[in-house]
Amino acid sequence: MSLPRIAIDAMGGDEGVRVMVHGAAEARRDHDKFRFLLVGDEARIKSALDEHPGMAAASEILHCDEVVEGDEKPSRAIRRAKTTSMGLAINAVKEGNCGAAVSGGNTGALMAMSKLALRTMPGIDRPALAGLMPTLGENDVVMLDLGANTDCDARNLIQFAIMGAAYSRIVTAKAEPRVRLLNIGTESIKGTDDLRTASQSLRDATGLALEFDGFIEADKINRGEVDVVVTDGFSGNIALKAIEGSARFVTDLLKTAFTSSLRSKVGFLVSRPATELLRHHLDPNNHNGGVFLGLNGVIVKSHGSANAKGVANAVHVTARLLEDDITTRIAADLAEMGEDALRETGNGHSSGDEPKA
Amino acid sequence: MSLPRIAIDAMGGDEGVRVMVHGAAEARRDHDKFRFLLVGDEARIKSALDEHPGMAAASEILHCDEVVEGDEKPSRAIRRAKTTSMGLAINAVKEGNCGAAVSGGNTGALMAMSKLALRTMPGIDRPALAGLMPTLGENDVVMLDLGANTDCDARNLIQFAIMGAAYSRIVTAKAEPRVRLLNIGTESIKGTDDLRTASQSLRDATGLALEFDGFIEADKINRGEVDVVVTDGFSGNIALKAIEGSARFVTDLLKTAFTSSLRSKVGFLVSRPATELLRHHLDPNNHNGGVFLGLNGVIVKSHGSANAKGVANAVHVTARLLEDDITTRIAADLAEMGEDALRETGNGHSSGDEPKA
Repeated sequence: MSLPRIAIDAMGGDEGVRVMVHGAAEARRDHDKFRFLLVGDEARIKSALDEHPGMAAASEILHCDEVVEGDEKPSRAIRRAKTTSMGLAINAVKEGNCGAAVSGGNTGALMAMSKLALRTMPGIDRPALAGLMPTLGENDVVMLDLGANTDCDARNLIQFAIMGAAYSRIVTAKAEPRVRLLNIGTESIKGTDDLRTASQSLRDATGLALEFDGFIEADKINRGEVDVVVTDGFSGNIALKAIEGSARFVTDLLKTAFTSSLRSKVGFLVSRPATELLRHHLDPNNHNGGVFLGLNGVIVKSHGSANAKGVANAVHVTARLLEDDITTRIAADLAEMGEDALRETGNGHSSGDEPKA
Repeated sequence: MSLPRIAIDAMGGDEGVRVMVHGAAEARRDHDKFRFLLVGDEARIKSALDEHPGMAAASEILHCDEVVEGDEKPSRAIRRAKTTSMGLAINAVKEGNCGAAVSGGNTGALMAMSKLALRTMPGIDRPALAGLMPTLGENDVVMLDLGANTDCDARNLIQFAIMGAAYSRIVTAKAEPRVRLLNIGTESIKGTDDLRTASQSLRDATGLALEFDGFIEADKINRGEVDVVVTDGFSGNIALKAIEGSARFVTDLLKTAFTSSLRSKVGFLVSRPATELLRHHLDPNNHNGGVFLGLNGVIVKSHGSANAKGVANAVHVTARLLEDDITTRIAADLAEMGEDALRETGNGHSSGDEPKA
């Protein structure tokens, strides 16, 4: 089976066309069977491709003039879907010309346009935004939902667990990633009704390609003891940003401390390799690539401010998702979970766009 | 007006009676007008007081044999309220023998027992757990609720804002602390209905002793740009633990980095003063003292693992709350907000134990 192409929104991202093309070319070195559709200003894309003949040979250009703005409302972006680089990249997935699209543009617009164009896959009520975060262990941890859904019920959470495990198998190469639900305590009585119901259903389920072990508290996310953290989009967004802000807070304190005296400046220079290691671990470019899971097609969000290495990481994740055929994997686990088990948990609630299988 | 006494649960805290007594004695140096009721094993308390004659002269001992266990269920702790050091400390507040109680014991038990014994103050539906966190600015930031209430409506959030501002005035000495609601974006359309309703009501309110400025995202909590962060107990607990876990993650990475080579070990030693500064900022003992706000009496939770300096901080906070008569201040702001304004937001919802004023 030949691999599907990857659409790149070459205009989405603060750093411009060159960074998107350069990043994609870098990722292509490890995934040289892929072909690309580069969507955006043809002259600038061609100019960026000059430096990357191999990438140029593997790419088709789809010209367009318009770009979704960073602060554009999703409703307006949707109306301009036929004329913007983001809209056309998503449309290429919808029409089957590509298997996935990568964009560094406006997250809300990307989410809304993708959901409308691609619809949720059979058995999934709502797509989720999944991201990778560094840990003290060997692998990054997958966390979802990071903000696509403010309210989630037990049925949504179970579906997120299955989708997150499918993503984690690709990241960790584990057959059964360790999955937990984010909660304010680990005892089974803690949290909301939906969390307790989802936990019980995941415990009762057999045959899923994941190892479910109850709840996890937010201070344990980065310890490397778990592969997938499942949560509603509100709590997930709070946890993600709290972690980012706290890491920045500590490194800012360090900077202040290290520049506070000549002695500490000398110490800083001597220990430069150590602080470089820290910087490498915390550099979001090394963990770039948020994925919208649960749609009929793979949509990957690259950080708006990502550099070429960051974009390469996002395209690398995209290629691995396609190589692994994540959509088929999720569908298989959903079948294993059984529509009956899911139906029991969610009292028939659904806000998805797609009729259930 | 004479100051009310402070009850100290001398048995609550992992480090034992000596640490609780030593910490209280240290705090008393800055607050020498206060008198104390020390609740717990009389022989051990007396022995601990031998080192602190000033404290001994200012203290009465209330002997008891029993202690609330760290993993004891709140329901069981409540049944033992008349015989445990925690229960008797709270009871001293209830009976008016003391104005406040400090405990380093089981948080869930302390919360449940306090709520039952003291009831919420007029105009408050639910008490909240408020904590202090370090920032890049001059002052710690107050965040509440940290886990007392899993679900909160707009009315609860407004009350938390008023209570948090009252606490912050004591911490920052500002007449109008800057208050924001924790949300997943700063635009007014973001988040839940309750968040948007609370935001609008706080914007519309005039005459409150606080400066309300809409929403804040979790990555900005520690920047020093805000004095009070208001949130429901679920999100607050997630944010607090995510921040703690992330700070620990970064310092663990640093430790690994600094011990990875001889060069970086030397660098670490040379820059010791800098890393000490970091440790000082992140040491929870410097930000110790979670406060249950909204009860008829002040209840302060000291970290179970706090050292004497940490306990001193918790007692210092308690003394400041009493000196400032926080309960009266909250009542005044509630009156300013007006029962009518509050009634509009919460569609009459209340889960408090106290009839409204």
